[in-house]
Amino acid sequence: MTELAIAVDLGGTNVRCSVIDARGRVLFDSRQSSAGSEGVDAVIRRIARMIDAAAEDQNLDSSVVVGVAAPGPLDAERGIVKFAPNLPGWDEVPLRDRLEELTGRRIVIGNDANAQALGEYYFGAAKDVDNLVYIALGTGLGGGVIAEGELIDGYAGLGGELGHTTINMNGPRCSCGSQGCVESYCSGWAIARDGRALAESGRSVVLKRLAVEREIGAKEVSEAAAAGDEEAAEVIRMAGYALGAALANYVNIFNPQMIVIGGGLAEIGEALLAPARQSMMRYALTDLTTGLEIRRSGLGVRTGLYGAAALVLHSDTL
Amino acid sequence: MTELAIAVDLGGTNVRCSVIDARGRVLFDSRQSSAGSEGVDAVIRRIARMIDAAAEDQNLDSSVVVGVAAPGPLDAERGIVKFAPNLPGWDEVPLRDRLEELTGRRIVIGNDANAQALGEYYFGAAKDVDNLVYIALGTGLGGGVIAEGELIDGYAGLGGELGHTTINMNGPRCSCGSQGCVESYCSGWAIARDGRALAESGRSVVLKRLAVEREIGAKEVSEAAAAGDEEAAEVIRMAGYALGAALANYVNIFNPQMIVIGGGLAEIGEALLAPARQSMMRYALTDLTTGLEIRRSGLGVRTGLYGAAALVLHSDTL
Repeated sequence: MTELAIAVDLGGTNVRCSVIDARGRVLFDSRQSSAGSEGVDAVIRRIARMIDAAAEDQNLDSSVVVGVAAPGPLDAERGIVKFAPNLPGWDEVPLRDRLEELTGRRIVIGNDANAQALGEYYFGAAKDVDNLVYIALGTGLGGGVIAEGELIDGYAGLGGELGHTTINMNGPRCSCGSQGCVESYCSGWAIARDGRALAESGRSVVLKRLAVEREIGAKEVSEAAAAGDEEAAEVIRMAGYALGAALANYVNIFNPQMIVIGGGLAEIGEALLAPARQSMMRYALTDLTTGLEIRRSGLGVRTGLYGAAALVLHSDTL
Repeated sequence: MTELAIAVDLGGTNVRCSVIDARGRVLFDSRQSSAGSEGVDAVIRRIARMIDAAAEDQNLDSSVVVGVAAPGPLDAERGIVKFAPNLPGWDEVPLRDRLEELTGRRIVIGNDANAQALGEYYFGAAKDVDNLVYIALGTGLGGGVIAEGELIDGYAGLGGELGHTTINMNGPRCSCGSQGCVESYCSGWAIARDGRALAESGRSVVLKRLAVEREIGAKEVSEAAAAGDEEAAEVIRMAGYALGAALANYVNIFNPQMIVIGGGLAEIGEALLAPARQSMMRYALTDLTTGLEIRRSGLGVRTGLYGAAALVLHSDTL
């Protein structure tokens, strides 16, 4: 049993690197920018230096394994980031092999949302819940599924793309090129799209006024809704309703014991989650929602880091 | 390793009971009616007698295990048929325990579509394919998923309800009480519903004429389509298109290596499967359809029996 792991969370804005032990204690913490114009390899070198610094600070020998949670789609088996919408230039990058070369350590990489699901399972709201669906509501809608204690990522490690399940064959265009995916209704970009439409058409006076000062994002729509703007509230409600239909799909397929909702957008709270719960009950088979718990993630900004550490713990149990 | 199993396939019309060995050879075969007015317990007693007869014929000692594929939703863990739309009176029936009492043998029961998925994995088109989605196109749309060699049936064994995944939140009412499930587009009853509407409205002359002689079912719609009726062909095409959207969902979630399509309705063939393949490609993430094979099941009327035998083989590997 691994006692501790070096955890790396590669996001669109920051790289975080921590040392986390098997009981979830964070022994070391660091953060640097992941953006910049120096190119992909410079970022990989920066990550390698962060790993070295963490190991040095904690006096870790070379047997300590590194978990890296990275944006997907990602080929976990071969350790390749296939592309990352929020990291320009990341296209078929053999991240695992490069980091192994640079650090001399064993590296385990995983899709960030899949890793977060594992993080919830090892350290979070769903600790030891063997059948679990995790949803990451952020700019996109990610997710991960654990069935009988195993991560569902499929034949080539590309599965678990929960955001790209169609809930309306005739629905809006999605970031993936398809249409009517749940992400095209319930995600940061989808809510922002609907909010901007309300501002432009003038149907929401609050958002129209706000749009003069700053760009309308999901945060602005949520704030306008909370301030009593009915049109903005309807956008949030519809996003939640669509989320619930997708949750019903996961429920009917996976019969989970728990659903955990994480990601920044989850902070909208009940305005989003209450309609989601209602429509889930409406669309799912009754037998499968009996006793089903929906929880908010409690891991906060370190969800990705816990996920990365969980990748290491989990790879040990294989 | 179990050398052979007694396999029982409980369907809406017949009970089949066979003895099948680990290489898939059928050593004994029997069939009786599952219908009748004598009630649930009489049918269970009949099944027990069929099991006894099979064991006696093949000289099997009491250590040989019985696999039973039964209609779902079904609680595989506790061995209970929760209800069976096509078997009147089957409501929370403790089938496993009753059969164990009556036969003195260990009984393994499983949802029929889940069992069929295992049957394809142990004996059929997907032999040894560890990541596999199986679809049973019949009166309803059933299915089963095998991920990394394990059946996905969830916390209470109620999962794998692939037919009841919403592909259109605003779609037609479904047999499960929800709406827009793929089954509400692509199933025997859904195609029959659309065919009857064509007959009643007179939009399909062929079906209107046929409806005088007999009830319009999926078979009649398919035959009218094959005979050149454009309206009937459109019903089949739309059913296939909807199936493809659902397949895309399973692909994005499970990243399978193969999809196997079985069940009586699959015999419609390319008229149904070609639009399904097209729309799957349209809705799924491109990376996940690369190299993905879609195959027809080759196990025929014995698919359920092979599934029941596979339940036994599989329970041995747990």
